[in-house]
Amino acid sequence: MATKIVFIGLGNMGLPMALNLVRKGDEVCGFDLSPPAVEKLVQGGGRAGADRAAEVAAADIVITMLPASKHVEETLLGSGGDGGNGGAVAAAKAGALLIDCSSVAPATARRVADAAAARGLDCLDAPVSGGTAGATNGTLTFMVGGSAATLERARPTLQKMGKALFHAGGHGAGQTAKICNNMMLGIQMVGACEAIRLGQANGLDAAVLSDIMAKSSGRNWVLELYNPCPGVMDNVPASRGYSGGFGVDLMLKDLGLAMEAAVASSASIPLGALARNLFDLHSKAGAGALDFSSIFRTFERRPA
Amino acid sequence: MATKIVFIGLGNMGLPMALNLVRKGDEVCGFDLSPPAVEKLVQGGGRAGADRAAEVAAADIVITMLPASKHVEETLLGSGGDGGNGGAVAAAKAGALLIDCSSVAPATARRVADAAAARGLDCLDAPVSGGTAGATNGTLTFMVGGSAATLERARPTLQKMGKALFHAGGHGAGQTAKICNNMMLGIQMVGACEAIRLGQANGLDAAVLSDIMAKSSGRNWVLELYNPCPGVMDNVPASRGYSGGFGVDLMLKDLGLAMEAAVASSASIPLGALARNLFDLHSKAGAGALDFSSIFRTFERRPA
Amino acid sequence: MATKIVFIGLGNMGLPMALNLVRKGDEVCGFDLSPPAVEKLVQGGGRAGADRAAEVAAADIVITMLPASKHVEETLLGSGGDGGNGGAVAAAKAGALLIDCSSVAPATARRVADAAAARGLDCLDAPVSGGTAGATNGTLTFMVGGSAATLERARPTLQKMGKALFHAGGHGAGQTAKICNNMMLGIQMVGACEAIRLGQANGLDAAVLSDIMAKSSGRNWVLELYNPCPGVMDNVPASRGYSGGFGVDLMLKDLGLAMEAAVASSASIPLGALARNLFDLHSKAGAGALDFSSIFRTFERRPA
Amino acid sequence: MATKIVFIGLGNMGLPMALNLVRKGDEVCGFDLSPPAVEKLVQGGGRAGADRAAEVAAADIVITMLPASKHVEETLLGSGGDGGNGGAVAAAKAGALLIDCSSVAPATARRVADAAAARGLDCLDAPVSGGTAGATNGTLTFMVGGSAATLERARPTLQKMGKALFHAGGHGAGQTAKICNNMMLGIQMVGACEAIRLGQANGLDAAVLSDIMAKSSGRNWVLELYNPCPGVMDNVPASRGYSGGFGVDLMLKDLGLAMEAAVASSASIPLGALARNLFDLHSKAGAGALDFSSIFRTFERRPA
Repeated sequence: MATKIVFIGLGNMGLPMALNLVRKGDEVCGFDLSPPAVEKLVQGGGRAGADRAAEVAAADIVITMLPASKHVEETLLGSGGDGGNGGAVAAAKAGALLIDCSSVAPATARRVADAAAARGLDCLDAPVSGGTAGATNGTLTFMVGGSAATLERARPTLQKMGKALFHAGGHGAGQTAKICNNMMLGIQMVGACEAIRLGQANGLDAAVLSDIMAKSSGRNWVLELYNPCPGVMDNVPASRGYSGGFGVDLMLKDLGLAMEAAVASSASIPLGALARNLFDLHSKAGAGALDFSSIFRTFERRPA
Repeated sequence: MATKIVFIGLGNMGLPMALNLVRKGDEVCGFDLSPPAVEKLVQGGGRAGADRAAEVAAADIVITMLPASKHVEETLLGSGGDGGNGGAVAAAKAGALLIDCSSVAPATARRVADAAAARGLDCLDAPVSGGTAGATNGTLTFMVGGSAATLERARPTLQKMGKALFHAGGHGAGQTAKICNNMMLGIQMVGACEAIRLGQANGLDAAVLSDIMAKSSGRNWVLELYNPCPGVMDNVPASRGYSGGFGVDLMLKDLGLAMEAAVASSASIPLGALARNLFDLHSKAGAGALDFSSIFRTFERRPA
Repeated sequence: MATKIVFIGLGNMGLPMALNLVRKGDEVCGFDLSPPAVEKLVQGGGRAGADRAAEVAAADIVITMLPASKHVEETLLGSGGDGGNGGAVAAAKAGALLIDCSSVAPATARRVADAAAARGLDCLDAPVSGGTAGATNGTLTFMVGGSAATLERARPTLQKMGKALFHAGGHGAGQTAKICNNMMLGIQMVGACEAIRLGQANGLDAAVLSDIMAKSSGRNWVLELYNPCPGVMDNVPASRGYSGGFGVDLMLKDLGLAMEAAVASSASIPLGALARNLFDLHSKAGAGALDFSSIFRTFERRPA
Repeated sequence: MATKIVFIGLGNMGLPMALNLVRKGDEVCGFDLSPPAVEKLVQGGGRAGADRAAEVAAADIVITMLPASKHVEETLLGSGGDGGNGGAVAAAKAGALLIDCSSVAPATARRVADAAAARGLDCLDAPVSGGTAGATNGTLTFMVGGSAATLERARPTLQKMGKALFHAGGHGAGQTAKICNNMMLGIQMVGACEAIRLGQANGLDAAVLSDIMAKSSGRNWVLELYNPCPGVMDNVPASRGYSGGFGVDLMLKDLGLAMEAAVASSASIPLGALARNLFDLHSKAGAGALDFSSIFRTFERRPA
């Protein structure tokens, strides 16, 4: 019998994730504030939900893919934010599994987990990386927080949407792992731009220098797969006007979560915080919707 | 017939490099301000030089491995810094090849190249990475600036000391490539420390988190091969009290060269400059001789 | 008739503030988790509270001086954080005035104001600067958020504890003004340390250089009144081993609030965030309880 | 009898400075690569020089006001950079006084001083602040390096061009003092922009917030006299489209000198280096010729 899934949040990521579940045999009921998004799910074989509490109460698994902490708290914990009323945690049936794929504060994940535990429900924080292409192709990476047993329970479902599953630790650890990884990514993107531009300013060819660094101790994911300098690599955003890919404003959001987590946990992140502020200045200058590798442009002298 | 090489600068790097040349059949005459260093070369089969100008005048190849720009300029260009008197460029015989393996400013490499060109001599800037282990084992990486033809001429000699040769571009490009690579390395080392510590502060295991990042978009050379957190990897400086490896003060020197190159070439390096200043503060606190991954310690709360 | 004041939070700041109210004729009932703190208030002429809800219900004015947002929310809004039960907002009598002197997030101030407005109560956020000396001497500066009319109502009370009152704007504006001011202060403290040390490293006398900058465009409060270099000024923490003054951990807290506010309001604070992280590293190295000007020490080479 | 002065470098600063000397009775012979600049000096009562060596040999005082270290070295030390030939130090008559008002590296000032000392000539490094308005009105500030006796000798001449003279220390100290002061200024300008924008993003009025900070511990020269937010102050560049004032590229040059001085003297300047890189990014985006307070704009969201 098909697993009954309620999927809340059918945005750029959520919709293709939900469609992959449908395609692979699950019975998916979707909710989103945008009717066209829900309509696309229906066209793909899913079902439009009407009464959310009733649907949640009937679901085996509730998956959320929402923009920010406040949406996750409202949706899962209810308007009072305390799990008391109106939230999916309160509405879910005994034995249901809750999976939050949103990227939010670790503290939010822990609050959700506390509320779920109070009702005896299994839950996971399972934020993703891989972008819309990964969501569409079912090749996302999940960084998962929660118990190993719950991860095993969720594995068949997650594998319909992604290919790599990392168990980062207890509740909130999935969020923390994603924040740390994306902070590292943001830092090495900015660093790669600085290094390539410093080389160019001294007469080096960007492709030659990138290749040298990619084979030396400067090696990183950006230089290997996602070079920010136009023309160095085919099939990366830099070579198509910085369209597609992972947007500046999404990187900015993750680096903002890193800033908040650093303050909340008394950690020092001088480079991470600087990267956040550089992406913020870049976004303010109008680049929020471009791929995050477009930060390369800020290191170039603008034609007069 | 053995190639006659004058090797100037027999420090922690220069001595094992010169010994590899001896071992592989070259006739090496060494110079260093430290008599014990020269003595070790002699014990290894080299020869102690006395009259430097005369030895240089008889050499096929002159290799320099010196601490900083000023030493390179004095040694190769002479006390007036203009190639006019007392420098190896002036003393070398027609047809000699000059290879500077020191890590210095690109501008210094270009000055040396200009002086060599004025005398019709071939020269290369060929700074290395790989540390004392690479120097001893003959597995250094050379980043080379100069003509392709000169690089081919030098290749047999360089391959006695290292295994990877990158042709970065014209004169000075080897220095620039090394500066860019090491700036990238310094940035990703600090970034990795921040990410791992942020994770730990939120309850994650350093090894688990490092592994996740090393398999995701946060991947880089530090996380793959040189984890700064004690206990995560065997055989790295972090797991032996940050001894051995690549010293804080060497990284600091390279980041200082990056700062100077950025000013000289109107490039922006916000993260690179911040990394330089963090390593400088770390050195001032007494860590200059430790491996550069020891910057990890500054992110930990010191026991009261 | 004496104004009946309940004062919650009798720490290093709160206790001397409360004592000034007593001294100037108010009837003060104090609460604190630490019995000795309450005892000191009693010795100074105040009264120890027992039933907090009852005392609050009888008070004309309720003043809070607490460590962080969560304490303010629990104390004023109750355990549910929603004003519903157990909080001073719910307990206060009609017509009471609430003044929160804690340094907390602007969002917390706005939540308190919303709850107070729902009950028709006047309230202000009124964080202070001036340190324990200002609290003791009644010379604090208040940065006030709330209506001008409420500020006038509170003025006689605030003037018993301080001498300068700034009306920053509506609810939360007092907190924002303090955060901005202290971020500026933190930045110019670190900047002053950098400038003085750069001068010293180039042979300048710290006092001569400080004097030149204090009379030029580099002028700021730090250089005029709070020089961080030992020996330049008498009667500053730098000249007494960085004891007294405004602690590193307090500056760190304010800069953390700035980081959170920047993320919440999409503002860029590259220097502010860097200053926060430098103070955090300084605190981690063991300096949390020293005056914040002790960051000067991190710019000096530690004796071997 | 009028003092015979050779003035080399009649740019935006040098020309009005030379004209003030003429106006106050000196006999000024000027040199500049730009004939129109020399012509303006002639129209103001000065004289156009033809044979520089001859004019220098006849001068009581030689003043230089040049763009960068290399121009100062060429002009004063000659093409070989060693004082040997072609430079003003070599050409000057016995007893002549050399005053370099350019803003250059302290090391350059020391090289000039060494060459002058070898010839027994008095010299000073005397960089200025006060901008073109100060140069025109004769109200510049001089930060002077050299002996106190030489400063006294130069005082009457300097007072014809400025009103404040600071004796910073020995040779090079004037340059260092200016670099430190302007680094402090650059830091507090960026800091002020961050603080004001953070306040505005949280609903505060820029003028109210600036006033509060200017009266509190956040006080500095920028907030008192040079507010970067349009409309807060009359008669500042921010209120006339960031025209006039002290250009971004001039601040950038001074912060570049600070970066170089920090590397050369092993000093840490995390905020100073970050400010340099932010001004560099701002210049690259096209703002090089605007007043440096225009960095405020980068903190604002650009209209779509």
